[in-house]
Amino acid sequence: MPQAQLLPDIAFPPDAPPASAAPVRYLDDLRPGERFTSAGHLLDEEQIRAFALQFDPQPFHLDDEAARGTLFGGLAASGWHTAALTMRLLVQGGLPLAGGIIGAGGEISWPRPTRPGDVLRVETEIVSVTPSRSRPERGMVVVSSQTRNQHGDVLQQSLYKLVVPRRPA
Amino acid sequence: MPQAQLLPDIAFPPDAPPASAAPVRYLDDLRPGERFTSAGHLLDEEQIRAFALQFDPQPFHLDDEAARGTLFGGLAASGWHTAALTMRLLVQGGLPLAGGIIGAGGEISWPRPTRPGDVLRVETEIVSVTPSRSRPERGMVVVSSQTRNQHGDVLQQSLYKLVVPRRPA
Repeated sequence: MPQAQLLPDIAFPPDAPPASAAPVRYLDDLRPGERFTSAGHLLDEEQIRAFALQFDPQPFHLDDEAARGTLFGGLAASGWHTAALTMRLLVQGGLPLAGGIIGAGGEISWPRPTRPGDVLRVETEIVSVTPSRSRPERGMVVVSSQTRNQHGDVLQQSLYKLVVPRRPA
Repeated sequence: MPQAQLLPDIAFPPDAPPASAAPVRYLDDLRPGERFTSAGHLLDEEQIRAFALQFDPQPFHLDDEAARGTLFGGLAASGWHTAALTMRLLVQGGLPLAGGIIGAGGEISWPRPTRPGDVLRVETEIVSVTPSRSRPERGMVVVSSQTRNQHGDVLQQSLYKLVVPRRPA
């Protein structure tokens, strides 16, 4: 399947700093307040419709004309599409954690619809770092992420609990 | 793209009642405690890998061998894949709301990994129904959903706030 063609990753705006090139972090390396920024992802109508056909086939995610008469007022991406793209941006350098990004759960909200032409970028802040009492090799990190478009509008606000390994002795 | 082939919806177990054939509900029709059950969806390794390639390209979502050495202990679906499939099951009859399923946000957790061969089904309970004070044509409904596999294991627990229209006068 042509996934790669559907998901062109671009840097935006052109003069923005690239996604953090920081080394991968273990639990021991993370501090509350530390921030990371992802690369950008340009979303278009084709991607919005393809995701909706598979996972959220409602008129306001499939057809601009049909969406005009709804709460959205025009074609909007499924919130789960925004969430999935946020994950991709975090995995691909937006949050450089040792062991990958393993979420146990969290909170999510979509203050504004994600539209065709939006360039998504994820800003993440480390909220808390808690070594496990029972599992000495890992701990829990709470992160707060905002997914914004090129205008700075917050499209998704999320708070996740992540499992992060400690640095091997 | 061959989305339909990737997502065979089946009823499971064979003797289970089908997804609710209840008429579409407006805000006025919903009561706390009311429950709905979706159809089933059989997830296979091909679907898990296809989603991960697009949205969550980490080794434990792509390759069973690579996943064995991780927290997951074997190939597991991205939590966002479970979330997206849950949405699809809700949209396709699992939660028959007038105006569709429009979420403002919520909480989500994944108590257990979703595995190849799992048959997902979503059970939803209406938690609260609150007419809007400022917008007489709609209100907010909080729903609690559990996405389970064929063994009854809870793969995803979620609590959503949904915007639901009132019955037209």
